Amino acid sequence: VTIKAVVFDAYGTLYDIQSVAAVTEEAFPGYGEIVTQIWRLKQLEYTWLRTLMQRYKDFSGITRDSLTYALNCFGLRCKSPDAFERILAKYLDLDLYPDAIASLEAMKDKKLAILSNGSPDMLTALVRNSGLEGLLDAVISVDAKKVFKPSPEAYALIEETLRVPPHEVLFVSANSWDVSGAKAFGLNTVMIERGMTEGHGGFKDGMVRPRAMYAALRNRWDDLGVWRDHHVFALSELPALVAGQRS
Amino acid sequence: VTIKAVVFDAYGTLYDIQSVAAVTEEAFPGYGEIVTQIWRLKQLEYTWLRTLMQRYKDFSGITRDSLTYALNCFGLRCKSPDAFERILAKYLDLDLYPDAIASLEAMKDKKLAILSNGSPDMLTALVRNSGLEGLLDAVISVDAKKVFKPSPEAYALIEETLRVPPHEVLFVSANSWDVSGAKAFGLNTVMIERGMTEGHGGFKDGMVRPRAMYAALRNRWDDLGVWRDHHVFALSELPALVAGQRS
Repeated sequence: VTIKAVVFDAYGTLYDIQSVAAVTEEAFPGYGEIVTQIWRLKQLEYTWLRTLMQRYKDFSGITRDSLTYALNCFGLRCKSPDAFERILAKYLDLDLYPDAIASLEAMKDKKLAILSNGSPDMLTALVRNSGLEGLLDAVISVDAKKVFKPSPEAYALIEETLRVPPHEVLFVSANSWDVSGAKAFGLNTVMIERGMTEGHGGFKDGMVRPRAMYAALRNRWDDLGVWRDHHVFALSELPALVAGQRS
Repeated sequence: VTIKAVVFDAYGTLYDIQSVAAVTEEAFPGYGEIVTQIWRLKQLEYTWLRTLMQRYKDFSGITRDSLTYALNCFGLRCKSPDAFERILAKYLDLDLYPDAIASLEAMKDKKLAILSNGSPDMLTALVRNSGLEGLLDAVISVDAKKVFKPSPEAYALIEETLRVPPHEVLFVSANSWDVSGAKAFGLNTVMIERGMTEGHGGFKDGMVRPRAMYAALRNRWDDLGVWRDHHVFALSELPALVAGQRS
């Protein structure tokens, strides 16, 4: 079977979520790094917990709730309501990884799409602001199902939207749990490994850099009972992988 | 309605999960604290992710997988297979919070039970080793449903086991997400707040104590769209709360 569609996770895969750290640091000097890490960790937790509890709230709302949580940890919220909105706005204008556009262009003989937890309004702004509009056949939000990844229903949206069956789809994510969810559903999968070694270097004298703690928690492979089909270290490796891909 | 049953979460609520840190430190000097925190964070993640993916594995297996992950972060696993088993064994013999037994004894006119993610073998050992056997009417494991909390099916086990309807049950947990899950299901809830302020003190010069990062992530209230009915700071406050409780 030949791969007919390549589908990307957005946050952390095409877009560098760590690019919010600078805006956060500017708004709350000394706290940019730790707030960014707690924010992202809670954001993911809330998607999982609300799906399990059957209390869906869209990703835009969850992104607000988790930023509120992260700022509250350090008593930062009330000091600056403007800063709160400025940080959130950055989530609609994240930096693409530098090899994203060239990699997508090199695969344009395939159907290309995003499948993301992001709500439709967030994804529309993100794709437009980053200039990906013309390169994608579809931008799919889990919001249509009111569940978040790694629920099987979320991955089912790919076939429902693109009309390509799971075994002809290659799903790309830098989030290990997302790769596992996609694989458990029956998609072909690629894990992008970024910064796996950071956890080690940032630990010293019983203290850890928040970013290193985040990397230790998020940038390693999680054994959830399924295994990725491929792994690469950058988006730029994908075109060759896809060109040679038959299974 | 009067409360007829008081049901407790086990890990972190009746039992101090931080009590594994000493054993971990003894086995891996310098890494006890960070390994303990990453272990617990991943253990929870794996329960949520596997439930969402519909790839249940019992809590005993998840506890192994998450400890493996935490040790791998620092290249520690291969150095000592004995140490691995020694740390896991501590999970069957955790310290009770000092006020646990007196609090349970003071409420023995109610049905008392545990509802835990723990697998039946783990809970049997834990309850026996800590001398709680005679004080509990039931030790309920989510394993009967092959899902983890906060899935509604997990909380449904209380009525199925104790024959007390949700509105006559008081559910007690120190895990905010667990309180939210119980409340979303329809139980009366108490949140036990422990060490909420730790996150603040352990952050200095851009570095954080792993335990403070854990506290920042886990010991604060999460806004998941429902609200706890009560909150206390220790188990010892429960008997008075239950005695006065009518709704």
